[in-house]
Amino acid sequence: MGKKVSMAVIKRLPRYYRYLNDLLKVEVKRISSKELSERMGITASQIRQDLNCFGGFGQQGYGYNVETLYNEIGKILGVERRFSTIIIGAGNMGNALANYTNFQKRGFDLIGIFDINYNRIGQKVNGIEILHTDELDDFIKKKNVDIAILTVPSRNISEVAEKVVELGIKGIWNFSPQDLKLSHDVVVENVHLSDGLAVLGYRLKEKEENNSSN
Amino acid sequence: MGKKVSMAVIKRLPRYYRYLNDLLKVEVKRISSKELSERMGITASQIRQDLNCFGGFGQQGYGYNVETLYNEIGKILGVERRFSTIIIGAGNMGNALANYTNFQKRGFDLIGIFDINYNRIGQKVNGIEILHTDELDDFIKKKNVDIAILTVPSRNISEVAEKVVELGIKGIWNFSPQDLKLSHDVVVENVHLSDGLAVLGYRLKEKEENNSSN
Repeated sequence: MGKKVSMAVIKRLPRYYRYLNDLLKVEVKRISSKELSERMGITASQIRQDLNCFGGFGQQGYGYNVETLYNEIGKILGVERRFSTIIIGAGNMGNALANYTNFQKRGFDLIGIFDINYNRIGQKVNGIEILHTDELDDFIKKKNVDIAILTVPSRNISEVAEKVVELGIKGIWNFSPQDLKLSHDVVVENVHLSDGLAVLGYRLKEKEENNSSN
Repeated sequence: MGKKVSMAVIKRLPRYYRYLNDLLKVEVKRISSKELSERMGITASQIRQDLNCFGGFGQQGYGYNVETLYNEIGKILGVERRFSTIIIGAGNMGNALANYTNFQKRGFDLIGIFDINYNRIGQKVNGIEILHTDELDDFIKKKNVDIAILTVPSRNISEVAEKVVELGIKGIWNFSPQDLKLSHDVVVENVHLSDGLAVLGYRLKEKEENNSSN
């Protein structure tokens, strides 16, 4: 690939990937940037610009071949690469995530779930037995784990994150409200659920204001 | 406000709001766009551009007054407006969301939780009793509910969404993997958790490739 692609484009790729998958399911073979634009609510010029970052897979006047585009975006995202993944924190959020079948489809194989609470140890979530966090050390080293999904309380998040990175974890998906800043060379994605809710609130308020001013 | 602000800017505001809140907690009074940039990993010029959309709250050479900026962004986001909110689907995800104290802080008051499963009815989550979805009709009309958070299975999502919108719900936060397209005039935010994981996967893959080519 060579060229560095901006994070803004990267963040839109999973969305393209989902829409193309939906099109494939209903056996759509080709699609123009205009049609894709109407479905996705992104401007056609934005779509052409985004896809050009990767050399562009469209043909002037013919649109995009859905299957080719789907496969190429998949390659860019790395869905062909499997990531071995563990969840730390088997509370409600950990359980909900463990049951998401979508992760598996996208290349993330859940191979372990850990908790500190002895009452949860030995229970199964999505066929996987919950282990105690004391076993993390052995597990990560033996199984060559790539990614840890952290659904532990905020007060423990830094400690747990530092620990798993020392054990060789390369990527962290952090569900605690506190952004993780680690000294180590590790990839972190912080999830901020309430940001999405804040955007919903903004849009509702804006709509009310528009309605009352009409 | 008058001027229409782009969705890309709006989506960054909750993040500014969080960072400013962190600064307030440690009693930082003023901050330059440069310092904010270093903390947030957004370019200083992007920050100035974003905040200019709202008339700009900075003073050349003096930086931003943290408290003023925090309050102004809060107003824009509508945190002073309270939104009465219900959760439909009291499974793991519904439970996890019901226990997020952050939503309350951001203006979203959780006043009801609903499920179709009789085994869950009457249990309490975060002090709120789970009611049967048969009671949605009465509840939404009586309590003037603004927002429904939907954590029901994908196969039921359209039906549930159409129903609550008919009952007067104005905003939907959709956690099913399927994007909601409703005929009604309602604000929908679709949550796609696996998109974040896909971005993490991309960044990991990119890093591995860079390491191996060095």
